[in-house]
Amino acid sequence: MQKKDMLYEGKAKKLYTTEDKQKMIMEFKDDATAFDGEKKASLQKKGKLNTEISMIFFELLEAENISTHYLEKLSDNEMLVEKMDIFPLEVVVRNIVAGSLAERTGLAEGTELEEEVIEFFYKSDELGDPLLNSEHIKLLELADKEELAEIRSKAREINNVLQQFLAEAGIDLVDFKLEFGRTDQEEIKLADEITPDTCRLWDVSTGKKLDKDRFRQEMGGVMAGYEEILKRIKKEK
Amino acid sequence: MQKKDMLYEGKAKKLYTTEDKQKMIMEFKDDATAFDGEKKASLQKKGKLNTEISMIFFELLEAENISTHYLEKLSDNEMLVEKMDIFPLEVVVRNIVAGSLAERTGLAEGTELEEEVIEFFYKSDELGDPLLNSEHIKLLELADKEELAEIRSKAREINNVLQQFLAEAGIDLVDFKLEFGRTDQEEIKLADEITPDTCRLWDVSTGKKLDKDRFRQEMGGVMAGYEEILKRIKKEK
Ligand SMILES: Nc1ncnc2c1ncn2[C@@H]1O[C@H](COP(=O)(O)OP(=O)(O)O)[C@@H](O)[C@H]1O
Ligand SMILES: Nc1ncnc2c1ncn2[C@@H]1O[C@H](COP(=O)(O)OP(=O)(O)O)[C@@H](O)[C@H]1O
Ligand SMILES: [Mg+2]
Ligand SMILES: [Mg+2]
Repeated sequence: MQKKDMLYEGKAKKLYTTEDKQKMIMEFKDDATAFDGEKKASLQKKGKLNTEISMIFFELLEAENISTHYLEKLSDNEMLVEKMDIFPLEVVVRNIVAGSLAERTGLAEGTELEEEVIEFFYKSDELGDPLLNSEHIKLLELADKEELAEIRSKAREINNVLQQFLAEAGIDLVDFKLEFGRTDQEEIKLADEITPDTCRLWDVSTGKKLDKDRFRQEMGGVMAGYEEILKRIKKEK
Repeated sequence: MQKKDMLYEGKAKKLYTTEDKQKMIMEFKDDATAFDGEKKASLQKKGKLNTEISMIFFELLEAENISTHYLEKLSDNEMLVEKMDIFPLEVVVRNIVAGSLAERTGLAEGTELEEEVIEFFYKSDELGDPLLNSEHIKLLELADKEELAEIRSKAREINNVLQQFLAEAGIDLVDFKLEFGRTDQEEIKLADEITPDTCRLWDVSTGKKLDKDRFRQEMGGVMAGYEEILKRIKKEK
């Protein structure tokens, strides 16, 4: 499958059309951004690592009968995906308190949640990705009631699969961000990526952060963290 | 009923115990604050105006069989209220887009909502009163599912009563903030205040702001707005 036109360049990926209208090529860039694009860098090998990590997670989910946009890996930093109509929602699932949930609730970072917490943020760079409640989502017509319920339940299933798989790799799945879309046949599937850019992943025994927070918090060893994740999940799969 | 000890001094009111453990005296202050207390002023007669306006709204709601903490007016700036265990939630009801809803959604200020939108903010000065979704409320155990449903439905009823009453007074009820509490008998009632400090109220024909936004936005004529509201609702009641 050959790339045709670049349809969209985001902060971490590029999307290309192909000769098949229903398929796109997703290219993972080495670029890293944080704080609404205020902090920027190029991290060598990030695109390659994220491609491989995403592929492993998508294949794991497909094996568990959770449908995703993933079709196949094309090269080190490219995958073929199904073209979707993306819900403009960042669906965040949390198992342990961190980041904005700590700020919002006053709960200490690291607090384990008895039940996972799901949040919806409006995917809008201009508005700064604000939190939305169900009534905002309805008002903005971002998803209807049935779609939202399906997205919630898929997000929970995905969390169960990933959390268990990562636990076996000695990694705590603290929280992660998902994007869902609708196919031409109105089927809701998981889209976008599952990578250390979009997940908080902590070593189970030491609590060491292995994800993009190392970049946000200037901790160094960012790519070493991603490599460690890849090494461990490759062994488990 | 005599004031005993001051139990709490907030930004706009003081609460005093009385000889009756179940009753408190609520004193409305002339103080005005905005932007998390960054902007402060004393506005002569605000306490008196807010006392009278709150009283009219509470009596209106009671007449419609919506129970509130209001018992009686004691003086120009004091009312006797039932002591409640307050849910630490600011319950915001919106009929027209303004303020943070405009910022959050990108919808233009003034857009009429087909259906009212209800939001819950965490009543926490330290955390800056953040928006919460239902899962956050559950996690923080701020209200259980049944209580939250009851609060939502009471908020809708109150909106219907106030919106209609204010329309007759030529005023658009844009949005407002409510606080609910539980009595000793576990009954949920409306508490706190309903005043131009906590509502957005626009003149129906000119769109002129008659509420605390005149203070927030340095528009002048703040107390003239409050006087206008009182004059109109006194005529309607
Ligand atoms: N299967 C898909 N079909 C169409 N668009 C997708 C698909 N998967 C992801 N996208 C979109 O492609 C973009 C991915 O690029 P990214 O760099 O992450 O963008 P952004 O900076 O907007 O997050 C996102 O806007 C995402 O919603
Ligand atoms: N009936 C009641 N019983 C107990 N507390 C109440 C009652 N009604 C209101 N309150 C509380 O009294 C305080 C009112 O003072 P206010 O100046 O508005 O405080 P704040 O600055 O915290 O908003 C609020 O904390 C409110 O929750
Ligand atoms: Mg993205
Ligand atoms: Mg108050």
